[in-house]
Amino acid sequence: MINRPQEITYYDVVGIGNAIVDVLAKVGEGFLTERRLPKGGMTLVDARAAGRIYSDIVPEREVPGGSAANTVAGLASLGGAPAFIGKIHDDELGQEFTRDIGAAGVDFFTKPLNEGPVTGRSIVLVTPDAQRSMFTYLGASKKLSVEDIDENVIKASKIIYIEAYLWDEDCDKEAIIRAARLAHQYDRKVAFSLSDKTCVDRHRQEFMKFIIDEVDILFGNEDEIKSLFEEEDFYQTLDKIKPHVEIAALTRGAKGSVIVNGRVKTMVEAEKVDNVVDTTGAGDLFAAGFLYGITQGRSLGTCAIIGSIAAAEIISHYGARPEVSLRGLVRKKLMSYGIHP
Amino acid sequence: MINRPQEITYYDVVGIGNAIVDVLAKVGEGFLTERRLPKGGMTLVDARAAGRIYSDIVPEREVPGGSAANTVAGLASLGGAPAFIGKIHDDELGQEFTRDIGAAGVDFFTKPLNEGPVTGRSIVLVTPDAQRSMFTYLGASKKLSVEDIDENVIKASKIIYIEAYLWDEDCDKEAIIRAARLAHQYDRKVAFSLSDKTCVDRHRQEFMKFIIDEVDILFGNEDEIKSLFEEEDFYQTLDKIKPHVEIAALTRGAKGSVIVNGRVKTMVEAEKVDNVVDTTGAGDLFAAGFLYGITQGRSLGTCAIIGSIAAAEIISHYGARPEVSLRGLVRKKLMSYGIHP
Repeated sequence: MINRPQEITYYDVVGIGNAIVDVLAKVGEGFLTERRLPKGGMTLVDARAAGRIYSDIVPEREVPGGSAANTVAGLASLGGAPAFIGKIHDDELGQEFTRDIGAAGVDFFTKPLNEGPVTGRSIVLVTPDAQRSMFTYLGASKKLSVEDIDENVIKASKIIYIEAYLWDEDCDKEAIIRAARLAHQYDRKVAFSLSDKTCVDRHRQEFMKFIIDEVDILFGNEDEIKSLFEEEDFYQTLDKIKPHVEIAALTRGAKGSVIVNGRVKTMVEAEKVDNVVDTTGAGDLFAAGFLYGITQGRSLGTCAIIGSIAAAEIISHYGARPEVSLRGLVRKKLMSYGIHP
Repeated sequence: MINRPQEITYYDVVGIGNAIVDVLAKVGEGFLTERRLPKGGMTLVDARAAGRIYSDIVPEREVPGGSAANTVAGLASLGGAPAFIGKIHDDELGQEFTRDIGAAGVDFFTKPLNEGPVTGRSIVLVTPDAQRSMFTYLGASKKLSVEDIDENVIKASKIIYIEAYLWDEDCDKEAIIRAARLAHQYDRKVAFSLSDKTCVDRHRQEFMKFIIDEVDILFGNEDEIKSLFEEEDFYQTLDKIKPHVEIAALTRGAKGSVIVNGRVKTMVEAEKVDNVVDTTGAGDLFAAGFLYGITQGRSLGTCAIIGSIAAAEIISHYGARPEVSLRGLVRKKLMSYGIHP
């Protein structure tokens, strides 16, 4: 049959996640301790608390953020074809988010809110050690619903990529489950990112069930996977995750990454980064590069190399969106490693 | 240009090695200690010593052997197209070797000796712990010369595979170097097996030079690679071999295998074997499966899985040639692991 365009995957990846604008600010170590704000990771705040922190900082830049949104923007920069599903308010920040993600090369059609909470925002405080502590007001993001899961977009995508942050607060779990089930119904792969250690702490049981039932490709860093299994030894987690997913892609910062795929574990060195400026988005961009490799049929080792090249670019500057064409950067790097670009 | 058949690689692998017939015998632990024969590995003996051991054993079977010959026979059983270069005498044992390797599906054209040493043989003593101790009289094998390196066969093969045992005694190093250089001249890959720890001990400096100058794909087990670098820690050897070869495929018995390829290390579990009967040929058959995977464009993880399936078959019975069609066995196993066969 010729006339079945819906069978064609014209997207490589559709990301589903919180639609967030990041407000970046550099602060001293004292800023966090004085306000008893937790360092590292992501802390959820309400509109009032977000306002309080915001009034005390000098915002350096407002940049489009959101974990899965960063990933699909990275995927576009690598040369892939992504879409994004996430909820904004039709306010100034929401329009900014829409323009930015479109300019990055990502299709984004989710209907914005016209009433209720404003567009979500994350205040990212970067301390002199390049660590980021995020304080997030989810806002409109929480209102993602089953109606926003566009069946045509899901079936047109090779992979759907879901961020764990979606579980936070009273989001519509039904929307996420529907997206995953639709994907499998059309023989697509479901990828899931563990997002953040504290997020895993909050939803461990639900995540484990979701992973077992729906996830083909799992992303996480060392802290997140340890938290998932409440296990101290990273190497033990490799055998524990093995039976549950097709691929687990686990990152360990400067120690590189480990990809678990059945009987095969692939260990890949991290890219050298001379000057780490801001680690925001490292995991998101690793996932972008890894998924790009998967959609191009590359070996798992090469997928992880592309992931670490993308991650290395992101942590060498502020913000979680690439500042160069990742496509060109990856081509150059792969050739320097003797890998066909 | 159409009329250039010499550009076509109609062989996957040509093995270059000693042409040996294995004489297998089961002995008790006492047999070795009483005669002060070293246990494990391969010991070179002269014609007289070989005769003495032979007269004391009850030969269980005579089977075609030789490390690289085992590898190419395994490759044929996997569905690949191999050839073999090695020197026999035109005597009874030599004719047996020729018939057997032909029946296994390996092209073998090397001109036999009509005078001088008889066809090489290896007395393989298998102790109750399934360890094998080999006592080898190289005989005609030592007479392999530059004239035996058929340029047409080399340029018709994707990979040439050389066994380290060739270095033993006064073999013609020039023949080996010529084979490797011819291969590179025609853009073919050169694979090299370290063969045996004591063999590495005997030729460490020459091997290191050969590896650096000529080898693309290196095979070895844990003991052999440790001996090569005189290094106690296996994990240290991984970083030491990395800059010198494109791929190092290192086996560790029941602990599985590690493939080093630039920035990527791939760790693969060993196949479970319920009853290890005789470990002779485990390394040879791992190389067969791995190289078969390479010639089929499989990922390094899958190459190592195919290698361990082939190795597991070999160690579950006496002798170093497959007793089932490895092609069918591998297809069945890969499917059971969810890997496209």
